[in-house]
Amino acid sequence: MYKSLSLSFMPCKAMLQPRARITRQDSENFVDYRTKVARNPTMERLQRNYLFPEISAREAEHMEKYPNAKVISLGIGDTTQPLPDVVASSMANYAHNLSTRTGYRGYGAEQGCKELRKAIAETFYKDMGIQGKEVFVSDGAQCDISRLQAYVDSSVIIGQTGDVENESGRYRNIEYMKCGPHNSFFPNLSKAARTDIIFFCSPNNPTGHAASREQLERLVGFAQENGSIIVYDSAYAFYITDGSPRSIYEIPGAEKVAIEVSSFSKIAGFTGVRLGWTVVPEQLLYANGFPVINDFNRIVCTCFNGASRIAQAGGLASLSKHGYKAVISLVDYYKENAEILLETFESLGLRTYGGVNAPYLWVHFPGSNSWDVFNEILEKTHIITVPGSGFGPAGKEFIRVTAFGHRENILEASKRLRSLL
Amino acid sequence: MYKSLSLSFMPCKAMLQPRARITRQDSENFVDYRTKVARNPTMERLQRNYLFPEISAREAEHMEKYPNAKVISLGIGDTTQPLPDVVASSMANYAHNLSTRTGYRGYGAEQGCKELRKAIAETFYKDMGIQGKEVFVSDGAQCDISRLQAYVDSSVIIGQTGDVENESGRYRNIEYMKCGPHNSFFPNLSKAARTDIIFFCSPNNPTGHAASREQLERLVGFAQENGSIIVYDSAYAFYITDGSPRSIYEIPGAEKVAIEVSSFSKIAGFTGVRLGWTVVPEQLLYANGFPVINDFNRIVCTCFNGASRIAQAGGLASLSKHGYKAVISLVDYYKENAEILLETFESLGLRTYGGVNAPYLWVHFPGSNSWDVFNEILEKTHIITVPGSGFGPAGKEFIRVTAFGHRENILEASKRLRSLL
Repeated sequence: MYKSLSLSFMPCKAMLQPRARITRQDSENFVDYRTKVARNPTMERLQRNYLFPEISAREAEHMEKYPNAKVISLGIGDTTQPLPDVVASSMANYAHNLSTRTGYRGYGAEQGCKELRKAIAETFYKDMGIQGKEVFVSDGAQCDISRLQAYVDSSVIIGQTGDVENESGRYRNIEYMKCGPHNSFFPNLSKAARTDIIFFCSPNNPTGHAASREQLERLVGFAQENGSIIVYDSAYAFYITDGSPRSIYEIPGAEKVAIEVSSFSKIAGFTGVRLGWTVVPEQLLYANGFPVINDFNRIVCTCFNGASRIAQAGGLASLSKHGYKAVISLVDYYKENAEILLETFESLGLRTYGGVNAPYLWVHFPGSNSWDVFNEILEKTHIITVPGSGFGPAGKEFIRVTAFGHRENILEASKRLRSLL
Repeated sequence: MYKSLSLSFMPCKAMLQPRARITRQDSENFVDYRTKVARNPTMERLQRNYLFPEISAREAEHMEKYPNAKVISLGIGDTTQPLPDVVASSMANYAHNLSTRTGYRGYGAEQGCKELRKAIAETFYKDMGIQGKEVFVSDGAQCDISRLQAYVDSSVIIGQTGDVENESGRYRNIEYMKCGPHNSFFPNLSKAARTDIIFFCSPNNPTGHAASREQLERLVGFAQENGSIIVYDSAYAFYITDGSPRSIYEIPGAEKVAIEVSSFSKIAGFTGVRLGWTVVPEQLLYANGFPVINDFNRIVCTCFNGASRIAQAGGLASLSKHGYKAVISLVDYYKENAEILLETFESLGLRTYGGVNAPYLWVHFPGSNSWDVFNEILEKTHIITVPGSGFGPAGKEFIRVTAFGHRENILEASKRLRSLL
């Protein structure tokens, strides 16, 4: 399984590597003044790998070549549909009330407002034993993953990232596991080394694969045997409709081995509003019996001042009876897009993964190089995709396409792709 | 000088300490399942020091003893006055427009929107050579300081924190420097060790002291001689009215040695809205000549998905002609509060620092213990203050009071304090 965390996560990891102390004293020899602070050498390596800027550069090049082309982006997965009225109005009202004496609010609880924490627990973790006090509201999953990362500095990760760092053997204490169609996008745990932390993402980005109940039971069992902590990224869980678990806590015993990180971004169109959450169950304990939640709470209170109160008001509205219905319609809209794209690629005779339980499709071009496929599709159809090799070497025969987009663009993309035949 | 960064900063530092690998295999011996992940021992030490929860506990105790008392808090520095109409309306409009096809926006630039970056540069750094592209919008200064901290992992800090970790000698690579009235709240740099990073906050929290131009010139000179990078926290700079610099970049040459971190929280009442910024000048270079801004940009793009777009709309409105005027009135209001409190304490014959260029006062009670003073004031006047020793051992004869509050509460607090005589 390709790790969606790889892009957001690896560079942070890199930043935390101890820095070599270069004691060059030659800064006086240069015309420009330089500090004597050594650059983190890990940063130098990171600069070599930067997927989306490279895609942007190629898009710009293409636009120069075809100034009149109507380029359609199925690249970066960003929401496109307007917020439900009830959600936008609730944020607008909250913002307006901040200009009144009774409506003004200063700092909120770092963990998020109680009502929202409770609503998240009741909406997403009903009958799973998760309580509001175990939910920590964040300004988005990416930030919380960075915070977790800061904490689990010496963690070891299961997952195929295929980042440059992997090829260069940079992270010696990280276990990378190759996943793909050959193993149903699930690692061979019998061959996996024991690690403190296991990062896992389902539905997976970029492949769009949602782990089955049986796969997750094996994962939880593996964590229990090894005394590991799973960090489970469920940002796309709301797209699951085939009965696969939407939360790791659907697996009995997960509350003793797993943290779950999620987000309103792809559920409610909050990519620009910024709101997410992390669940740390009270039953999750360190080896010495101390609850992990107590330390996580301390980290949140120390390094974070809470998500914007306006965004939290929007999150709460999106979990109200009305809001929730509207949010489901939004997700359904993108799922219909995914279906259109899936049918399109299959009609071209291509093997496609994902797209059913996730807003991403992972399309196989056997024997080809994904950057070549990217270039060919762009040249012939003016459509931006994401070359799979950007997510790791195992993606070299794949491209990822996103189902986020206005319907007419998805239909137009479908038409252009079909004409490729 | 007491370091305002200490509370927000130190625990993050702690989290990044390498973890001792405790390989206890005895988890099976306990009734509760435990993972085999060792708790970070640094976290255990941190739990011992937690100023504001302790104050809250004492407040709760007091409320139980005097259930009818009207407690006034001059404790945590949180804004209390409604947002200017123009600012709140602009956020409300932005939120509302997110429900329209033309107004909807997804992910924004991680660095913040161009207009806001430009407006910050023009408003706060006019004639200092800082450009919009050198301004990175954040969700608040605290988060950016954590991000900086993640990066400057092996940094060494100048500043008096007096945290428990200091007493226990926990951070061996941190230089703590005692500052106070005896040295005009400025360290004796001739005795200071060379460090990679110098954290400095002006106006200072908790003392309310604003560094003079001459002091900052010495600081910049010290950084230049040593090739250090200054991280300058100017979150309260807008309260300066005596001609002291509001930005480190008022000092010639600072653009080659300093990063500045600031916030809309105390300027525009954005403590609950969450918006701040960090300036990294292009001229700031590592020893190898590589620009620090390039790495900072990479960190921001990797670990952060941008501040809420709604908050950014509010920030932009607060820097408009109308908004700026309203924001100045807000700051003036709190400054008048500070003046009332300053006169009050002076009328009691107490020596007071700060309160002129900052919304905090630092009140000296010679020969006393600050927790005793805290208790006595609470018992006799039902007013919450902050004991200075919570910020470090050098604060043990001081209390901090905040000037944030509704005017009638400040006047009532003044009345009660005067009656102490």
